[in-house]
Amino acid sequence: MKKIDVCLSPDLLHLYNIEDKVVIIVDILRASSSIVTGLANAVKSIRPIADLEACRSWKKKGYIIAGERDGKRAEGFDLGNSPFHFLDDELEKKSIAMTTTNGTWAIEKSKGSRKILIGSFLNISTLANYLNTQHDPILILCAGWKGKINLEDTLFAGALIEKLEKNFELSCDAPLAAKTLYQAAKPQLKNFLYDSSHVKRLKKLNILKDVEFCLTKDAFQVVPILKKEELIALKIPELSENIK
Amino acid sequence: MKKIDVCLSPDLLHLYNIEDKVVIIVDILRASSSIVTGLANAVKSIRPIADLEACRSWKKKGYIIAGERDGKRAEGFDLGNSPFHFLDDELEKKSIAMTTTNGTWAIEKSKGSRKILIGSFLNISTLANYLNTQHDPILILCAGWKGKINLEDTLFAGALIEKLEKNFELSCDAPLAAKTLYQAAKPQLKNFLYDSSHVKRLKKLNILKDVEFCLTKDAFQVVPILKKEELIALKIPELSENIK
Repeated sequence: MKKIDVCLSPDLLHLYNIEDKVVIIVDILRASSSIVTGLANAVKSIRPIADLEACRSWKKKGYIIAGERDGKRAEGFDLGNSPFHFLDDELEKKSIAMTTTNGTWAIEKSKGSRKILIGSFLNISTLANYLNTQHDPILILCAGWKGKINLEDTLFAGALIEKLEKNFELSCDAPLAAKTLYQAAKPQLKNFLYDSSHVKRLKKLNILKDVEFCLTKDAFQVVPILKKEELIALKIPELSENIK
Repeated sequence: MKKIDVCLSPDLLHLYNIEDKVVIIVDILRASSSIVTGLANAVKSIRPIADLEACRSWKKKGYIIAGERDGKRAEGFDLGNSPFHFLDDELEKKSIAMTTTNGTWAIEKSKGSRKILIGSFLNISTLANYLNTQHDPILILCAGWKGKINLEDTLFAGALIEKLEKNFELSCDAPLAAKTLYQAAKPQLKNFLYDSSHVKRLKKLNILKDVEFCLTKDAFQVVPILKKEELIALKIPELSENIK
């Protein structure tokens, strides 16, 4: 049976063999939600870049630049890390270079895996439907917060496992813990998350509407995949008809 | 308010400032359970040693040597890592040198903290009563399995937090996740754990009675503390009268 595993922090990724795996990058608040939103909104591609200054330099090459550090838009960047920034019609067919505190770093560390996809509540069913048709083992990589685990990414991992467990065997304790946590929190997901440290951080920044949006399930039918260093929308027409 | 935090794996310990903290080492299956059992059984002291050969060399100095690797007693050692090995009357007033796959490594990495204590279900109430009287911030360090998180240590962290949360503030998402996981699993703790990877590993080794014993709450009223490189029973007479 195909296997599914969860790595709760990029600081634990050295313990996993990623070469043969499809890695799902999860940074619910907010990088992976913003990437999904952008690609669903006809953005051509999003180039994830771990370093802030390296990202800034893509401006000269005609890219829109999106940059976030510690929850705030980085100075001089066109966009921050809010999914609403990625809904602007002006972005259609544009290429974006993007750097965030945790998400782009998680993508960088996952290079060398078989495939890199982006997961969020916004595209969870489309992603799950796609993965259920695939044969590779899966590793869900939670971006966390500066190496520490966080609730929202762990909960998403649990939610995705719930949608995959008929076809996949859980590899170790982390997927079982994530699934159990999600099932315990599910009836009151939003209230539960409002106790989390990152939501408290975002509350201070007054962006609770971002949090609400990032927890919306199945707003979009898109699966971002990394191709030649850029994230683009995977073409899966047969799945979009068959969602849920 | 005093703070309590959880580190789910020794491979994440670099993210935590331990200098001002009491670190509680947790390796439920089975190092911390065996240490608690030994000290409750009048063993004089237990010297944790990360390296197998270094541990073996303490035999010449008159120590009983206990050694485990990958769940099995290491060759040539007097004791393995089963708590039942630490119940032998012959061990009274003896000193033991001990090395295990995960637990002794977690202790080694915690040196430099304010205090190192050992936690297990076997001494959970005595430990919680003691911590509730103290003023230092707490970090619960789960030993995990070769760097990966595991269920039994995470669940214990959640159980201990439940006993301390009136007097402590949760530092970040890991303690909230551990507590929620414990509360979800509590009604069927044993059945829940029987799905975990380490219990499966121990099942193969035919030591399920160890697992059952290690999940027993409050069998002993002892708190092991590291003093001069050896674990001894902390003297807390006022608490042993007042248990539960």
